[in-house]
Amino acid sequence: MSEPENLDTTTNSTTNTVEPLIHDLNAEPETAIAPTEDNLVGNLLVGQSGGPTAVINASVAGVIQEAGIHPEQIEEIYGGLNGIYGILHENLIDLNEEKARAIEELKHTPAAALGTCRYKIQFKKNPEQAARDMDRLFDIFKAHNIRYFFYAGGNDSQDTNNKIHHEAIKRGFPMRCIGVPKTIDNDLPHTDHTPGYGSAAKYNATTVMEVAQDVASMATDDGSCCIIEVMGRAAGWLAAATVLAKRKPTDGPHIILMPEIQVDEESFLAKIKEIVDQLGYCIVVVGEGVKDKAGNEFGADKTRLDSFGHPVLSGAAEALGEIVHGKLDIKTRTVKLGYAQRAAAHFASQQDVDEAVACGRAAVRAAVEGKSGFMVTIERHADDPYQYSTGLHPLGDIALVERTVPRDWINEDGWLPNEQFIRYASPLVRGRLDLPTKGGLPKFAELSRVPVEKVLNPL
Amino acid sequence: MSEPENLDTTTNSTTNTVEPLIHDLNAEPETAIAPTEDNLVGNLLVGQSGGPTAVINASVAGVIQEAGIHPEQIEEIYGGLNGIYGILHENLIDLNEEKARAIEELKHTPAAALGTCRYKIQFKKNPEQAARDMDRLFDIFKAHNIRYFFYAGGNDSQDTNNKIHHEAIKRGFPMRCIGVPKTIDNDLPHTDHTPGYGSAAKYNATTVMEVAQDVASMATDDGSCCIIEVMGRAAGWLAAATVLAKRKPTDGPHIILMPEIQVDEESFLAKIKEIVDQLGYCIVVVGEGVKDKAGNEFGADKTRLDSFGHPVLSGAAEALGEIVHGKLDIKTRTVKLGYAQRAAAHFASQQDVDEAVACGRAAVRAAVEGKSGFMVTIERHADDPYQYSTGLHPLGDIALVERTVPRDWINEDGWLPNEQFIRYASPLVRGRLDLPTKGGLPKFAELSRVPVEKVLNPL
Repeated sequence: MSEPENLDTTTNSTTNTVEPLIHDLNAEPETAIAPTEDNLVGNLLVGQSGGPTAVINASVAGVIQEAGIHPEQIEEIYGGLNGIYGILHENLIDLNEEKARAIEELKHTPAAALGTCRYKIQFKKNPEQAARDMDRLFDIFKAHNIRYFFYAGGNDSQDTNNKIHHEAIKRGFPMRCIGVPKTIDNDLPHTDHTPGYGSAAKYNATTVMEVAQDVASMATDDGSCCIIEVMGRAAGWLAAATVLAKRKPTDGPHIILMPEIQVDEESFLAKIKEIVDQLGYCIVVVGEGVKDKAGNEFGADKTRLDSFGHPVLSGAAEALGEIVHGKLDIKTRTVKLGYAQRAAAHFASQQDVDEAVACGRAAVRAAVEGKSGFMVTIERHADDPYQYSTGLHPLGDIALVERTVPRDWINEDGWLPNEQFIRYASPLVRGRLDLPTKGGLPKFAELSRVPVEKVLNPL
Repeated sequence: MSEPENLDTTTNSTTNTVEPLIHDLNAEPETAIAPTEDNLVGNLLVGQSGGPTAVINASVAGVIQEAGIHPEQIEEIYGGLNGIYGILHENLIDLNEEKARAIEELKHTPAAALGTCRYKIQFKKNPEQAARDMDRLFDIFKAHNIRYFFYAGGNDSQDTNNKIHHEAIKRGFPMRCIGVPKTIDNDLPHTDHTPGYGSAAKYNATTVMEVAQDVASMATDDGSCCIIEVMGRAAGWLAAATVLAKRKPTDGPHIILMPEIQVDEESFLAKIKEIVDQLGYCIVVVGEGVKDKAGNEFGADKTRLDSFGHPVLSGAAEALGEIVHGKLDIKTRTVKLGYAQRAAAHFASQQDVDEAVACGRAAVRAAVEGKSGFMVTIERHADDPYQYSTGLHPLGDIALVERTVPRDWINEDGWLPNEQFIRYASPLVRGRLDLPTKGGLPKFAELSRVPVEKVLNPL
């Protein structure tokens, strides 16, 4: 993903120069878009799915604001509460009832303002239930004249969206489905990166920088090791981004364990010892999905699965901390940022917020122009000064595919990402969100959530 | 501690109105200070000790800047690296060699810029070593003509400072020792609160607010519980402060476990169940030092002691999470902020920074005026608009005493702090530090650390 993707005839690309952090949404498209023949008129439904990010609400704000300027095609603007799960229950709200101010405030509000879910339509595991779910969904779409459907989420959610898109075609129900990318994990393919990643990366790198200063300042002769666990599942993008905290070679983090490289315990301990001998302390960042030489995750509880069937990853830092303390007998402390890293609007990247809004707007533009079955992508045109545009890529290529950090973006010895990665990640953490506060603490959007009247029988 | 302390003749008090967040350092003292007879002239030594905070460097900046305006008494301004530990090794740096800009930048730089330590002079456990340490310290003080000694730290560090103060008197070595309060734990007696607390409270409350939004937005029918562990040792001040995240009764945190109240497991589980039944999720904050009914800390590893002999507390959230998941069978996640909460300069409280600077300056003023053996205190005169002044209190009363949250500042049922606590904590998190950044990440002070030439034999 180091090269900008080629623009082909299926992509809708708008080039924007984002120096200094201004995304020009009114720029002329680079390639002409063939106008669609049918001028589909109806209502819009937007939902959020999977783990929230600091900027998934910014994408919803982008969808709503762009939809508002296409009244000739988009009549009502509805939100589905808790994604597919709530839509199945006909829990829709009328977003046109929200104050314009509240919509604007979504751009600095973390979590999923519409609610989210991990509900999955189980086509393989439970085809009967899946068929019933699809019938119900299309009953809802028909009942509320939904002709524009937008789903913001990661791999699993794009898969759900893709299935709805194909089902609409199969049923001859004119509806345009566009996916809005979202995940702090940054593991979606065919996009340079995903909204949510830059903010989590900025917060994590800042936290690692601060913790590293703290630990360094306490280092006397005894030696110490601090292990900071970050999210990212099987991808090391979030772990790798903490390298941005390193301004001098001796700065932490000194070791970044990315799931892309299995950890040899002996070499890991030897590396820590080498660093502690040199500096008196060592800062280790570990991605939650890191595996040992035998391919087992550190601290994974395989008896606990989330509703997508993924094992609950938790405790890599604790597990490694026990190994380090036990084998090297040095003071060991752990930090586990958990949900804090994906919700940290208080130090979000303005670049990320702008791109999240742009992705929401691009999704609506694509649908209005007649596209369906695509996810919006971010295409990079230059690193410095950073330039990007939004594009489109077929949902079928994105669903359920996990993109990991390329091996040649990691140092040969495997302990840290290299310059290529730093060039990639640096622009994504720039700019600081201007967060409104009340009494010193953040002031987030509060939606009034006016329900759309239910017309179907309850589920 | 709800009432401002009475000013007696031993206190040096300067009243300041801090609305809007301006601490007037040039205000006239309320009570006259008797000028001391001896005009002690010599060098200043400042050290930092114990766990750092986001603002302990701001206190050092205050010491340096105030010292600079008393050239008639203070000649050289030295910093001791790694507190007493480094001072024993004659590791001093010349702070007059630092750029004025770097000193100013200390006001937004976390961790201990001079380095810190947990080294303790062991008067009881090892009196011979303690006697050797004291001899060595006074050799250093004499060799470098140290006449003003400032030590920024918590209970243990104030104890060390007190011992040095008494030793100076015993030895007839004219030197003035003043303690500068510091601890995120806020557990020092005889001061309304401690510098460092407000910033950690602000960051923790913000994090809890963000995580609560995240968890709430994912709540569907299954129920979930997120347990966030914060520091504070045996005191619940930090845990309690996360109540500021709660703007509506249904907002998280729903349960705050403070070490002041032992946890009855059955009631705790019943309370979680009640909240999950009502809201679909529950946010629990736990102070690391929380104990069960039998008086045992959850997740404490009693086999691991720090160098002050305190057990290493770690894992309360994990331990409670296992209980909740095991007994209630709901999805449970944990966050352990660890060092991140005491180093989070990126969201520090400007009020806290201002007070930390004021404490450093007050320490120097007190010493220049002839005092020794005191710690600077913060005295509150009004909650809203908040007003405070700095005062002084004898070190002997502060050393090794832990102040906890008063029982009548906690709701009768014990699950949350009450309005009295909220009135106390609210002013301390106000104002946002204007943090300079570079490439989107914080830009912290870098001291040049020019060593003072050693004149003694190595230790």
